[in-house]
Amino acid sequence: MPKPERQVLVCVNSRPPGNPKGSCGEKGGQALFDRLRGLLKDRGLDRRVMVNRTYCLKHCSRGPVVAVQPDNVWYAGVAEADLPEICAHLEGGAPVERLLMPDIPWE
Amino acid sequence: MPKPERQVLVCVNSRPPGNPKGSCGEKGGQALFDRLRGLLKDRGLDRRVMVNRTYCLKHCSRGPVVAVQPDNVWYAGVAEADLPEICAHLEGGAPVERLLMPDIPWE
Repeated sequence: MPKPERQVLVCVNSRPPGNPKGSCGEKGGQALFDRLRGLLKDRGLDRRVMVNRTYCLKHCSRGPVVAVQPDNVWYAGVAEADLPEICAHLEGGAPVERLLMPDIPWE
Repeated sequence: MPKPERQVLVCVNSRPPGNPKGSCGEKGGQALFDRLRGLLKDRGLDRRVMVNRTYCLKHCSRGPVVAVQPDNVWYAGVAEADLPEICAHLEGGAPVERLLMPDIPWE
């Protein structure tokens, strides 16, 4: 692929079960990553958009957290069912307002 | 911290010893992450710049790989000694030309 136009970061960080913060790993971060990669391929976006797994992106209690760069757009509580809308953003549409990380202090 | 102005991604992905690609984890990715966090704090940049560890960012043979967003600037073969120059970029300076990922096909 050429240098990616966009980079999507999917937190897959795991904390031990019972941790009060929870973690994106516990909430399905890896499955989200796998599904997003598949969708990008299906839509021919995989040569324009890079998707990477990360360790903690903060906001653990609002996971799974997904960040889109260079947009600096942060999504909270993303479910697999939300991914087609996020793909529309990645295809050049507007960010998905209802999934935006609330404007709370960053941990 | 408020929403970060910049996000620095440091690959710490490890492959088994002897893997022909090598890995950023093997080449000191974690130490780089730790040192960068310290430098950002020392310079009062830790409230403006977020630094995160990632799994594979590609270009394993040219690791450790560091990406700066939303600049979409990618650095290859970063050593701890290079971090002050990268901090100058993060403070608003120009990207560090000599560390830029060469324009080769993205894996």
